[in-house]
Amino acid sequence: MSNISRRTFNKRLTQGIAGTALFTGMPIACGMGAGQQERKLGVALVGLGSYSAGQLAPALVSAEHCYLAGIVTGTPLKEKQWMEQYDIPKESVYNYENFDDIAKNDTIDIVYVVLPNSMHAEFCIRAAKAGKHVICEKPMAVSVLECDAIIEACNTAGVKLSVGYRMQSDPYTDEIKRMVREKSFGNVQYVSSDAGYISRSNPDQWRLNKALSGGGALLNMGVYSIQSNIYGVGKNPISVSAQEFSTRPEYFKDTDESITAQMQFPNGAAGHLFTSHNANANRLFVSFEKGWAELNPCHSYGPLAGRTSDGKQIKFPHRSQQMLQMDDFAKHIKTGSTNFAPGEMGKRDMIICEAIYQSIKEGGKTIPLDLGDMGIVS
Amino acid sequence: MSNISRRTFNKRLTQGIAGTALFTGMPIACGMGAGQQERKLGVALVGLGSYSAGQLAPALVSAEHCYLAGIVTGTPLKEKQWMEQYDIPKESVYNYENFDDIAKNDTIDIVYVVLPNSMHAEFCIRAAKAGKHVICEKPMAVSVLECDAIIEACNTAGVKLSVGYRMQSDPYTDEIKRMVREKSFGNVQYVSSDAGYISRSNPDQWRLNKALSGGGALLNMGVYSIQSNIYGVGKNPISVSAQEFSTRPEYFKDTDESITAQMQFPNGAAGHLFTSHNANANRLFVSFEKGWAELNPCHSYGPLAGRTSDGKQIKFPHRSQQMLQMDDFAKHIKTGSTNFAPGEMGKRDMIICEAIYQSIKEGGKTIPLDLGDMGIVS
Repeated sequence: MSNISRRTFNKRLTQGIAGTALFTGMPIACGMGAGQQERKLGVALVGLGSYSAGQLAPALVSAEHCYLAGIVTGTPLKEKQWMEQYDIPKESVYNYENFDDIAKNDTIDIVYVVLPNSMHAEFCIRAAKAGKHVICEKPMAVSVLECDAIIEACNTAGVKLSVGYRMQSDPYTDEIKRMVREKSFGNVQYVSSDAGYISRSNPDQWRLNKALSGGGALLNMGVYSIQSNIYGVGKNPISVSAQEFSTRPEYFKDTDESITAQMQFPNGAAGHLFTSHNANANRLFVSFEKGWAELNPCHSYGPLAGRTSDGKQIKFPHRSQQMLQMDDFAKHIKTGSTNFAPGEMGKRDMIICEAIYQSIKEGGKTIPLDLGDMGIVS
Repeated sequence: MSNISRRTFNKRLTQGIAGTALFTGMPIACGMGAGQQERKLGVALVGLGSYSAGQLAPALVSAEHCYLAGIVTGTPLKEKQWMEQYDIPKESVYNYENFDDIAKNDTIDIVYVVLPNSMHAEFCIRAAKAGKHVICEKPMAVSVLECDAIIEACNTAGVKLSVGYRMQSDPYTDEIKRMVREKSFGNVQYVSSDAGYISRSNPDQWRLNKALSGGGALLNMGVYSIQSNIYGVGKNPISVSAQEFSTRPEYFKDTDESITAQMQFPNGAAGHLFTSHNANANRLFVSFEKGWAELNPCHSYGPLAGRTSDGKQIKFPHRSQQMLQMDDFAKHIKTGSTNFAPGEMGKRDMIICEAIYQSIKEGGKTIPLDLGDMGIVS
């Protein structure tokens, strides 16, 4: 499909099926007609780094319920290329200064903030104030206070909020959740997850700069191992302890290189996680009373793979996690279906991250957590 | 082969090939002739519990370099059955009181102590004083002090000592050691091993009685996860921290139920282990810079299985680990070949176990270790 024809195709879906009424920014309620449900929602990506360019924008080309309608970038040089590649009209291109004008752009339903972590709160709040639904890339922010501010801004504005947890829309995650919920092999006794990769190529990347990232491996990949520990047990942890490993301080000057953490769960399960910017590890292991399930690879973009102790493979057709994630959120906005990664989930994980950093600071002390069911989506 | 003919066969090997000189208890030096090397050494099992009955005795039937020559038991009822099943002469049957008379029995070269952990030191020392080579079942003892006493007794008596670490003779272990040594995928960055099973059937077992076992999951299965962490890195750790999980205190009244521990290695690798009497987990994962290796199952009797990140299977014909282990020790005695599980290795692991218990007592504090190359056998 050429650029032009893809743009025409998007317009046909958004205009032809649902009509111009949908471009007036009127709230879209549950229980609407089939035509409205089929309308594609317009997404604006804020920040055009490698994740937007390599994953999100391509995913939006194939998404069913949303499409790339706008961009927000601090790099004017990128504008032309993106406009051409994704058929984005000039009036839907913003920079960080005039971003708030997006409030007047009715082709934009969702703002997806893909900036460095320390900028999430500011732009999510500005997006909410502009009346746009918000996807905040993970980690949700660099503090629990910021998560609260984002949640409050979205509540006040009456817009939907989700966190960019692509794993929560992946069928492999669903399958583990199902096994845990249905006790396929009895109760869970132990869960272990690893999420790390070796980061060596670019010492100047923002992820290694604490002022921009708020933290290292833990905030980048560790949130996924926290998530898989939690959905691998089906409950939130009641305590956490953690340790930091620093073996290349000359490279990881400012942010955590590797972290191990242990979580205690209310149903008696023990949890362990490892996350790293200096080791490759990518797995979830769930030990039930009478069997086990494993995803490996687990936290990457896929194709994923899994197996269970009875010799069966866990296998699903590979589809873009980011496409599924954004489609799920668009469906949530359009129909009130489940929000698989609500703001409360992002806040919960930030509470756990802060407790992990606190435990490390206090020499591995166990930090109690009082999370209840916060952020649990089954 | 009938009982009688098997006994005759053993006698033929021990008498016919090497001659009666080998029954005088004279030391067997390196560099001896082929005939002497082929002589089977006589092993006496001390303690006829399930591990002796189910694993060691059957392994000795098929071993090449040793055979079951005697038994030491506190249960007179077992004597007749074992004598018949394994063709053991009455004069090679002992109880715990007259055990020291074994010094006069020249058909016994090796005493294998398979008693509850707290009895290892006493019987290993008595065996050494009786002039017998010693295999001490793992864990070597219930304290580092006891390990020292065993090592000293064997040195004083001029007898060989090894620990019942069956994994150290397993080809899967060798293959991981080879990959680490040859840096098949570069340096090791992270190693993780799990060794646990669910123990629910017998609350009266000695393993759950601290006076007999000295500790729970850590001393039983945890020593294997300590070992696989170490051979997975190829170095001893320089520090350890640990956490205990207690979810069934009514069953695990006296001994540790589950433990997680983290080890820091001098070459920068991070290590993690999990051990449990209340969760099934049985794996070694070694993350190199450019790939990974996994054994799963790893710590059980086999068949084991493994794979590497390049899609290859690690696969060896299944052979009894206990047979390989006892044959390796018999060869070590006969020819001076490598002792794959020397007393120093057992002592090193007990130092680590004591540090793990100390860390738990001190709320997860990191405990420095000064092990050098103690117990490293490559």
